[in-house]
Amino acid sequence: MDAIVDRAIRPEAAPQRTPVPPFDLVIFGASGDLALRKLFPALAQRNTEGVLPPESRILAIVRKDEDVVGLPDQIAGRLKEEGLAADQIEGFLRRLTMVQADALKPETFEALKTALGDTDRVRSFYLSTPPDLFIPICQNLAKAEILTPTSRVILEKPLGRDLASAREINDAVAAILPESRTYRIDHYLGKETVQNLLVLRFANTLFERSWSSRDIDNIQITVAETVGLETRAGYYDKAGHMRDMVQNHVMQLLCLFAIEPPNMLEADAVRDEKVRVLKALRPIVGPDVQRHTVRGQYGPGQSEGQRVRGYADELGHASNTETFVAIRCELDTWRWAGVPIYLRTGKRMAQRYSEIAVTFKPVPHSIFGQGGGCDRLDANRLVIRLQPNDGVQLQLMMKVPGSGKLKIVPRQLDLRYETAFDVRTPDAYERLLTDVIRGDQTLFMRRDEVEQAWAWIDPIIAGWQEYAPQPHRYAAGSWGPSQAIGLIERDGRSWADPDFV
Amino acid sequence: MDAIVDRAIRPEAAPQRTPVPPFDLVIFGASGDLALRKLFPALAQRNTEGVLPPESRILAIVRKDEDVVGLPDQIAGRLKEEGLAADQIEGFLRRLTMVQADALKPETFEALKTALGDTDRVRSFYLSTPPDLFIPICQNLAKAEILTPTSRVILEKPLGRDLASAREINDAVAAILPESRTYRIDHYLGKETVQNLLVLRFANTLFERSWSSRDIDNIQITVAETVGLETRAGYYDKAGHMRDMVQNHVMQLLCLFAIEPPNMLEADAVRDEKVRVLKALRPIVGPDVQRHTVRGQYGPGQSEGQRVRGYADELGHASNTETFVAIRCELDTWRWAGVPIYLRTGKRMAQRYSEIAVTFKPVPHSIFGQGGGCDRLDANRLVIRLQPNDGVQLQLMMKVPGSGKLKIVPRQLDLRYETAFDVRTPDAYERLLTDVIRGDQTLFMRRDEVEQAWAWIDPIIAGWQEYAPQPHRYAAGSWGPSQAIGLIERDGRSWADPDFV
Repeated sequence: MDAIVDRAIRPEAAPQRTPVPPFDLVIFGASGDLALRKLFPALAQRNTEGVLPPESRILAIVRKDEDVVGLPDQIAGRLKEEGLAADQIEGFLRRLTMVQADALKPETFEALKTALGDTDRVRSFYLSTPPDLFIPICQNLAKAEILTPTSRVILEKPLGRDLASAREINDAVAAILPESRTYRIDHYLGKETVQNLLVLRFANTLFERSWSSRDIDNIQITVAETVGLETRAGYYDKAGHMRDMVQNHVMQLLCLFAIEPPNMLEADAVRDEKVRVLKALRPIVGPDVQRHTVRGQYGPGQSEGQRVRGYADELGHASNTETFVAIRCELDTWRWAGVPIYLRTGKRMAQRYSEIAVTFKPVPHSIFGQGGGCDRLDANRLVIRLQPNDGVQLQLMMKVPGSGKLKIVPRQLDLRYETAFDVRTPDAYERLLTDVIRGDQTLFMRRDEVEQAWAWIDPIIAGWQEYAPQPHRYAAGSWGPSQAIGLIERDGRSWADPDFV
Repeated sequence: MDAIVDRAIRPEAAPQRTPVPPFDLVIFGASGDLALRKLFPALAQRNTEGVLPPESRILAIVRKDEDVVGLPDQIAGRLKEEGLAADQIEGFLRRLTMVQADALKPETFEALKTALGDTDRVRSFYLSTPPDLFIPICQNLAKAEILTPTSRVILEKPLGRDLASAREINDAVAAILPESRTYRIDHYLGKETVQNLLVLRFANTLFERSWSSRDIDNIQITVAETVGLETRAGYYDKAGHMRDMVQNHVMQLLCLFAIEPPNMLEADAVRDEKVRVLKALRPIVGPDVQRHTVRGQYGPGQSEGQRVRGYADELGHASNTETFVAIRCELDTWRWAGVPIYLRTGKRMAQRYSEIAVTFKPVPHSIFGQGGGCDRLDANRLVIRLQPNDGVQLQLMMKVPGSGKLKIVPRQLDLRYETAFDVRTPDAYERLLTDVIRGDQTLFMRRDEVEQAWAWIDPIIAGWQEYAPQPHRYAAGSWGPSQAIGLIERDGRSWADPDFV
């Protein structure tokens, strides 16, 4: 009878909430955008749920005097926006200790040392700062003898801007902490749908049989934003969309989609398999960059019903930075050889959505006749939607009801998480922050993953500098430059437009 | 852009309505239950849709004087119940010609001959009568020289009560009309969902790869009714549930599910493949009948909230007739060897539904750990629901959203026809009647199919007489006798309880 209850669509008890061990979490860059927007709300949420033991503390590092006084109020304001009640906000602020320090001045770390005191609690240091501060902060933590044998450090992306700079950071951090206590965060890995990718693949038999070049025609990964430049103009214009989105998020999605079954759901077993995928990516170098990639930059246009300016206008000056990337890549593995994988991501696109769309091969023979006999038989398609309306959709061909001539059309079997599970979907950072404290690295990027991704990305960026210094223009609110359409249409295929948005 | 429009969920233009050729349709048993309940409403529906050319006629054969006058009123009443407008009813009655004749008196066929006159229209004779009238009617039609070279005859089930009597009917009919003009009706084949079985199988690649013993653990076909004996007591008590439901409907479902791809969707190509399935059914003979089948008869109980009487009570006397059958069978084919197929059908069951449930094999290895690691991983299941709420449901394992311990539960991807297609679902007879006039035999049973089905059924019924003369008792409103549960549980499996009813 157990199985019957389980199968019914009903409110699902949320996974068991096991409190984490007592901890001190130190946040560098505590007054920054990420900390305010994501980290404090995630921690407050977990605190409200009783997952953070009472003695645990959150130490917010700020540089300026005014932040020492002002930040708690700002945090309280944010939590109120998130819908937390007054006593929940109060309860969270009680855990908060404001500490003044300057990442570049070792002598200012004494205050942090004093604040941390002499406990054997797990210490985690979240470096929510630009990457050029990663090394000095780690070195100053070591110098001040703040790091305990279980201390761990969390590095926000971007981790460098190419292989060389990533290695430099990784080497410097490795000199201070071992890999097992280094947590490179990519918040995409904390998203529910992304975690569910592994469950979909390895807790179900149905797709596994078809999960190879034998049955799959092509794979498309789309991460489309409608926003433009927003607040991080300086960083973004220097980095470009390739470094900001492809090297981390998009490639992580590709890895999780394409991996071989790990023996266990365990940090290194999973990450070993991800690295194998990255290593199998066929390099795109030299003139091939022009054939297999497209970079674009949005001009003025219409976005969500509003007239919007172009990128250069928003930036205030001309720029050759790309805000759109499309890539046709291939994996040289037994499973995936010959299956083109199309990646597409950009700002100011027609719709905001992220998904992985898998198009299967067509039927080998139509028993329904050609032409006059019935409609064209579309290939089956599986869509794993990450946002919005996250869920899974399977497109099958079905008969249209009616007594006349046979008519066959595509229709979707749907599952949306929001209706299938009557529980709140936690923000990615909620899981990731507690995973750090628990010491679970499964959803964090290992050094070799990050470096392998840069090793594949670097030649493409180099190729652009040589062969395509100017990004193609596309109108804000479109699907990117026409060259991106050409990239896939040349293969006789089309981008999968979103079915459920 | 065509594909985008196609993929959207939107009102679907009904399949093109091509008028049938002009015809005369003669219905024997026109005042009977089936004619009133199904045939006239189906014809009136098609007439309203403009599919029946104006010169076409429907000739209703009745025996009694009072029916000549009374039947048109009765039909008009039925059509009103079906929601037809006055002018639509009027329009249909205008096609109707009442003819008085007695199937057993050849001299009375003269009136029919006169009524039909001398035209080259397609003549179809629907024998909606008990099977013992099939031969005399055909012979009298021949004798009266009413049969033209394109005339066809439609035989309602039951076609005999065993192989011998079926052969006798088939031989007698074959002496008068060729197989190509003999239409043996099983209205299950006209159901939209049953027709969609072929489309699901052969217009989609995804399932085909898994459609064999390699990936499928077991197949369950359930046809559960909540009604009791109803009106056909005399016939039913003589026939029993095996002859009434299994020999035709249930075995037809099994055939369509299990067939190899025909080269074309064409009457004989499809029927050849169905016969191959029937021939591959491993015979259940002698004492094996007790191991692999269960017969039951309902006693008193609760049905849909009402106390109801048992079968014998409804009948008015004790009876050993079965109202429930469960069978474990196997197909000795390359594709299906070793996959148990469980059939279950009965009256007065807990819920009314018909479905085919395919349970796939479990994952070969759980990467999520055993016991403490996560929940049990249920096998994937595909349910093809015929009624009610016809549609397709795919059960996958999914992650429950939440930041705590990984929790994996079964959830369903759904497609219900009613929401996916915004068109009226025609009754099975609407399609079947026009298929006869068009001369398409795909959805009708060929002689060898019917006989092959009896050849498999006969030894089971014989085995019952020898080894299980008394059916097991089950309470009305239950899932059948406990022995039916034992039949599947012995294999370490369970009946798939309905997920969407």
